[in-house]
Amino acid sequence: MNKTITIELSTNKKPKPKASELGFGKYYTDHMFIMDYDAATGWYNPRVVPYQPISLDPAAKVFHYGQTIFEGLKAYLTDDGKIRLFRPEQNMARLNRSNARLSIPAVDEELAIEALKQLILTDSDWIPSDAETSLYVRPFVIATEAQLGVNASTQYMFMIIMSPVGSYYAEGIHPVKIHVESHYVRAVRGGVGNAKTAGNYAASLKAQEEAYAHGASQVLWLDGVHRKYIEEVGSMNVFFNIDGTVVTPALNGSILDGITRDSIIRLLKHMNVPVEERQLSIDEVVTAHQEGRLVEAFGTGTAAVISPIGELTWEGTRYVINGGNTGELSQKLYDTLTGIQRGTVEDSFGWSVVVEPSEHLISR
Amino acid sequence: MNKTITIELSTNKKPKPKASELGFGKYYTDHMFIMDYDAATGWYNPRVVPYQPISLDPAAKVFHYGQTIFEGLKAYLTDDGKIRLFRPEQNMARLNRSNARLSIPAVDEELAIEALKQLILTDSDWIPSDAETSLYVRPFVIATEAQLGVNASTQYMFMIIMSPVGSYYAEGIHPVKIHVESHYVRAVRGGVGNAKTAGNYAASLKAQEEAYAHGASQVLWLDGVHRKYIEEVGSMNVFFNIDGTVVTPALNGSILDGITRDSIIRLLKHMNVPVEERQLSIDEVVTAHQEGRLVEAFGTGTAAVISPIGELTWEGTRYVINGGNTGELSQKLYDTLTGIQRGTVEDSFGWSVVVEPSEHLISR
Ligand SMILES: Cc1ncc(COP(=O)(O)O)c(C=O)c1O
Ligand SMILES: Cc1ncc(COP(=O)(O)O)c(C=O)c1O
Repeated sequence: MNKTITIELSTNKKPKPKASELGFGKYYTDHMFIMDYDAATGWYNPRVVPYQPISLDPAAKVFHYGQTIFEGLKAYLTDDGKIRLFRPEQNMARLNRSNARLSIPAVDEELAIEALKQLILTDSDWIPSDAETSLYVRPFVIATEAQLGVNASTQYMFMIIMSPVGSYYAEGIHPVKIHVESHYVRAVRGGVGNAKTAGNYAASLKAQEEAYAHGASQVLWLDGVHRKYIEEVGSMNVFFNIDGTVVTPALNGSILDGITRDSIIRLLKHMNVPVEERQLSIDEVVTAHQEGRLVEAFGTGTAAVISPIGELTWEGTRYVINGGNTGELSQKLYDTLTGIQRGTVEDSFGWSVVVEPSEHLISR
Repeated sequence: MNKTITIELSTNKKPKPKASELGFGKYYTDHMFIMDYDAATGWYNPRVVPYQPISLDPAAKVFHYGQTIFEGLKAYLTDDGKIRLFRPEQNMARLNRSNARLSIPAVDEELAIEALKQLILTDSDWIPSDAETSLYVRPFVIATEAQLGVNASTQYMFMIIMSPVGSYYAEGIHPVKIHVESHYVRAVRGGVGNAKTAGNYAASLKAQEEAYAHGASQVLWLDGVHRKYIEEVGSMNVFFNIDGTVVTPALNGSILDGITRDSIIRLLKHMNVPVEERQLSIDEVVTAHQEGRLVEAFGTGTAAVISPIGELTWEGTRYVINGGNTGELSQKLYDTLTGIQRGTVEDSFGWSVVVEPSEHLISR
């Protein structure tokens, strides 16, 4: 394919929101990236264009059969004036794993990262610089063929849109309350739980509403088969510090292989903190709590980075963790990871990627 | 809300395909129905407009979080020159059950049926009249709010589009080969399997491809917990005639409560054929086959009505059913149900609804 990314600049720049107004995913930058696919041509016409509505046939498969996947990562404007991404190649690799599960044709990962960079450079004035702010980047693929049959589309659009964001959780790094869900199930082995696809999130809405109704901000999901093994927390992976050993559910096919999860595991190993990826039941967590061995718990994800868990509610009982405070390890992991992301902590892993203008793929 | 449906007629009528070219879901009529929702106003502006692309923000939640549901029913142009629908109130009731599961606000069912009728009357020249053809009607709701957070949208569109269709399966009423899926899972109790929502279909694509690769045309799904109880066949409910008793999986939360399924159960009862809704394992079916007691098997759904199963493949073994031929009961049920749908068989159930012009809601 032709890998030249064309760039059409917007002549109508939008006003930028104040840092305090950002929230999450409310504002979008002046440009977006699009690339089309059809079965005969493959992926074609990669382009940066002004941010604008897209026009689709009402029979487009995405509306009916949900054949779509997405990714989420952040760009940071760091104190040294540089733009940094965190492990973007991991996002593009996962994007293609999700694609494969959803019968969507693979995207050229190198081109996708270049597209990301070109788009970020085009809208670099949109990256907020205040503490805890960043530019959230959302690559996604949708099936666009206008045909009402349950089979893989022959046409797709790959897009990247970007949104300047503040903190994901209104509470910031403060501990959140979690509702352990015993009725609804997010995903099951053999399903699509390990793909970042729309249906998993649609399936979570009802339980999320019940969590709110119980005064909690997120759902802790149990496995769909035994209804006892811990899976994830909302849209985050989850870790429990039990007596100094950090335990997180093993990748079993029904949970997402979070990039933050992977980074935390590596950081913990680097810090010589024992870490285990294995099956973990809610009973084990409750027992550890009752015996005073549950030191900390936290969720991990791109949006919140680390989200300490101050309280779990399960079958009507409240389990307060670490007095409802942010644990020492949670804080340390948060500081280290956000430090690496923002270039203030030494990056011995080579995770942080500086976005530098590279003209070779651009044509204006 | 204002229940007046406005009608804007197309000035640019499309050519109509020949009956032999119809296929399924390839052509769309000249008009469509749209109604909008936002949290402040509720549903508003119900309108029939020329069929046209819809324009959405790329951050619209439907693209990312799959908050969408749909329905499917058929309109028939019958020999007496009338237009008939089959139990449309059941589709609208299920649409609202799906909506509830997906945290989508309920639609006024009466208005939705009126919308359906007005749209059909507007495009009545699109209803094909050849045998086995019909006008497939697809109501659906999509979440349109442009906001990247995993929570229910505050804005939606309810639409109805229509497509003249031939036979769903290339094979017509001829028996199909079915691949019993032992790895992939479509849905699990606690999930969204009993809602007609996009993610369930996205989750089925990979297995469907494997079925094709095995020379089968559809997947038989087993339950996600035990991996042994029969759920559905592709996008159909499934029935087994074991020694004269017709057995179909009970509604358990993970399968769709098909309107054809319900109609078949009622027809069987009316015909004094013993029918059981219960848990049914693949082992029981295989044992019945081995003992010569598996008389017939068939799928049921709006698209195919009755789809006889000529062969099952499970764990490498082929089980040919009824010599690979359409069974007597399958044929009888097909003839009776399609007869009621087309007004040639007496409808003692009151299922068939004639679409008659009713001007009270129309403004042109
Ligand atoms: C379901 C789910 N689990 C976990 C995560 C965390 O993944 P990551 O650390 O790559 O952001 C996400 C995405 O943010 C997610 O959507
Ligand atoms: C998953 C699934 N099962 C079963 C059916 C059959 O339902 P109905 O008879 O209402 O068409 C459908 C829809 O056609 C379906 O999508």
